[in-house]
Amino acid sequence: MSLRIAALRAARPTLSRSSPRTTASTFGQMSKRVYSTPTSNASRSQWKSLAGSAAVGFTGAILYNVVASYRESRTVQCDGVPAVEAIETHGYPWEPVNAIEKDDPKNPMRIRMANWVKSLQDHIVNTMEEIESTSSPNSFSPSPEPPKFLRDSWIRKEGGEGSSCVLSGGRIFEKAGINVSVVHGFLPPKAQMAMLPDHPSLPPPTETVPFFATGLSIVIHPRNPHVPTVHLNYRYFEIEDPLNANTPKAWWFGGGSDLTPTYLDPEDCIHFHGELKKACDKHDERYWKDFKIACDKYFYINHRGESRGVGGIFFDDLTTSSPINQPPVSTMPHKSQDDLFEFVKSASGAFLPAYVPIVYKQKDRKWTEEERRWQQLRRGRYVEFNLVYDRGTKFGLHTPGARIESILMSLPETARWEYMCPLGTEGSGTREAELIDVLKNPREWV
Amino acid sequence: MSLRIAALRAARPTLSRSSPRTTASTFGQMSKRVYSTPTSNASRSQWKSLAGSAAVGFTGAILYNVVASYRESRTVQCDGVPAVEAIETHGYPWEPVNAIEKDDPKNPMRIRMANWVKSLQDHIVNTMEEIESTSSPNSFSPSPEPPKFLRDSWIRKEGGEGSSCVLSGGRIFEKAGINVSVVHGFLPPKAQMAMLPDHPSLPPPTETVPFFATGLSIVIHPRNPHVPTVHLNYRYFEIEDPLNANTPKAWWFGGGSDLTPTYLDPEDCIHFHGELKKACDKHDERYWKDFKIACDKYFYINHRGESRGVGGIFFDDLTTSSPINQPPVSTMPHKSQDDLFEFVKSASGAFLPAYVPIVYKQKDRKWTEEERRWQQLRRGRYVEFNLVYDRGTKFGLHTPGARIESILMSLPETARWEYMCPLGTEGSGTREAELIDVLKNPREWV
Repeated sequence: MSLRIAALRAARPTLSRSSPRTTASTFGQMSKRVYSTPTSNASRSQWKSLAGSAAVGFTGAILYNVVASYRESRTVQCDGVPAVEAIETHGYPWEPVNAIEKDDPKNPMRIRMANWVKSLQDHIVNTMEEIESTSSPNSFSPSPEPPKFLRDSWIRKEGGEGSSCVLSGGRIFEKAGINVSVVHGFLPPKAQMAMLPDHPSLPPPTETVPFFATGLSIVIHPRNPHVPTVHLNYRYFEIEDPLNANTPKAWWFGGGSDLTPTYLDPEDCIHFHGELKKACDKHDERYWKDFKIACDKYFYINHRGESRGVGGIFFDDLTTSSPINQPPVSTMPHKSQDDLFEFVKSASGAFLPAYVPIVYKQKDRKWTEEERRWQQLRRGRYVEFNLVYDRGTKFGLHTPGARIESILMSLPETARWEYMCPLGTEGSGTREAELIDVLKNPREWV
Repeated sequence: MSLRIAALRAARPTLSRSSPRTTASTFGQMSKRVYSTPTSNASRSQWKSLAGSAAVGFTGAILYNVVASYRESRTVQCDGVPAVEAIETHGYPWEPVNAIEKDDPKNPMRIRMANWVKSLQDHIVNTMEEIESTSSPNSFSPSPEPPKFLRDSWIRKEGGEGSSCVLSGGRIFEKAGINVSVVHGFLPPKAQMAMLPDHPSLPPPTETVPFFATGLSIVIHPRNPHVPTVHLNYRYFEIEDPLNANTPKAWWFGGGSDLTPTYLDPEDCIHFHGELKKACDKHDERYWKDFKIACDKYFYINHRGESRGVGGIFFDDLTTSSPINQPPVSTMPHKSQDDLFEFVKSASGAFLPAYVPIVYKQKDRKWTEEERRWQQLRRGRYVEFNLVYDRGTKFGLHTPGARIESILMSLPETARWEYMCPLGTEGSGTREAELIDVLKNPREWV
């Protein structure tokens, strides 16, 4: 056990304690160094070079290194040991994750994925706190003490546990929720039937089967209307075989990440999409195209005829037998579960380099009351999508014993609805109309 | 045609024009006279006498007369002629309501009910404007001109029309929507199947059938946390018989009204429920008990384990063959459609006497920022109920061509969500906890 891991354990007997600051500080200093003069023309052009993924020149190289450092630190952290209490297993095989010191490919995927999402949660929480601490106190958060996430761990009576990290009243972030859950239990045939259309790899539902699910879920609503809202969700699901603990009957990964700006800054969109595309392309050049389209399709507010935001990537039911994972030439080897896990790590790991630069670039811009009003109206749309369409939210709201506070953590602190609001009227030539145009006609950003 | 109706027509060529002020002023003056010193002990005790429906004494008698005058005026108004443009009928029988001068029992029910809801809409809009005009300008509405409803009429391409009256930025009302719709079209068997569980009187769905629906829908969100939010919906539905225009294959009434306070004032609850009970008892003593229970059951936010508010009445699928309408003794006559229409008129007509006194009583009370915060959190719950559970909203959101602005008019102007908010914690002995207790354990108010 490395010294860092020992220190981590000493400082944090359970998940609800604060996470290590060392990595976060390193992140923070790097971030500050690079992004602290975000609105200058120089940094805007740096962005383009990065976004175009042909990063050349001095500053472009620094940015590239920051991204590389993110990845490196993240890999180290993934081997870390987020301490979790042993949990009730209902007789099914389950190793508490604090018994695992490294991401050992010999471990079952459920343990490896649970470890990954927990360490990624730590990283992201620390980075967001770093952004708060490098910003000045303001009227929303006048205290000289930088705002911190509330870390909250919970145990599900029916099986499983989770950790909710929520920041409210921040200098930069109005409300940020970064949740991990690791749950297991039993799925009756009816629930399996409901899953069939999205998961054709499910065995025919004839009896109640044990399941396992773990995932990381993030929604961040900043104060400043120029900083976009962001969302991430990555998950792993198994239908277990009671007779053969380590060979699930079915399993899949799902996930994605998308950006929801109040005002359109095409550079932000290009950067965000560019980082996700790079993460996809490292694993399969078919992924980006498919998952971008799936994202536009999923985050669509049908009754408004507009997308929730400018998209990103989205996928579900990703297994080795998924059509997209069939080798293009029959002589090529099939993808393994490991290959897909590596992709999920890259895609979810791209979250910080995709989002953090946008925050640093936009966070100190001034805004008007009118811009805030438009932001609040957009937040209303966010609420509409999450409560009316989002599968995860709907599933959670209708699951007995689900932790409602964690499920609805995705809702903004405040939202607004006006009848026949004139803001954003088509053809009005305003910046609000410019956003609506993109939401009605999704673009290819990269 | 009476002079009043002639004046009305001259002043208002379509529904989108302003409605007659005469009746409203009469109402307003009466209301002002009686309720202008609402927080005094004297008026509180008057209330009790009214609420207990054994109104005696001088002031109690005045209150009783006001309620009686409401009813009388409403009856007069019901004979009025809200002017509506002739609409597309798709070949099915339809008389534009401006061809009808009185509620003639010889007319088909669809015309009588459309007339009723339109005139009730007028009454209520006028009364709400009167409340605004008798209040002083304030920081929300500093103009010396009293705020007015925006009157907006629309035509549904697929058949039908409607009128949305919305007030925002009022002195007293943050957002109030009072909508009428009169729509018709065709229901495919699948849509009829979906309706079957709630409407066993539907004929077996084998083919696409023509339908007609009309209704009045109201949601009023006041600014002051001491004035409760209120909701009303009354509707009439027909499955038409293409071969026999005036004898529908199936029909029913539905509706109800409920109160959603931010803080509990038991007197308000007793008064509101008392007025609705009186309206029910006039027609059938079984109604109140059943419809009160149905209301508590319907306005329940399952994922929160609490009711939306303190209830009222709710019913659906009310026809002459409904079990509740069977005569208790076999020798008694069955209820007619007319009988049920008279009940619907009484119940919907009880809206103003049930709600307006509460507004006048509470509207000038001071409030704190903390009380406003709690109100905003409760508004968040209102949004949750409407988007996740409300059948009408869900039906509307999933109906192609539906008018989204009218459907979502029910949402508050602003709402709030906090993670693990400590306000209202059980057993804390606070006024917020007092409300939560009632929402978790519905009471018998009368």
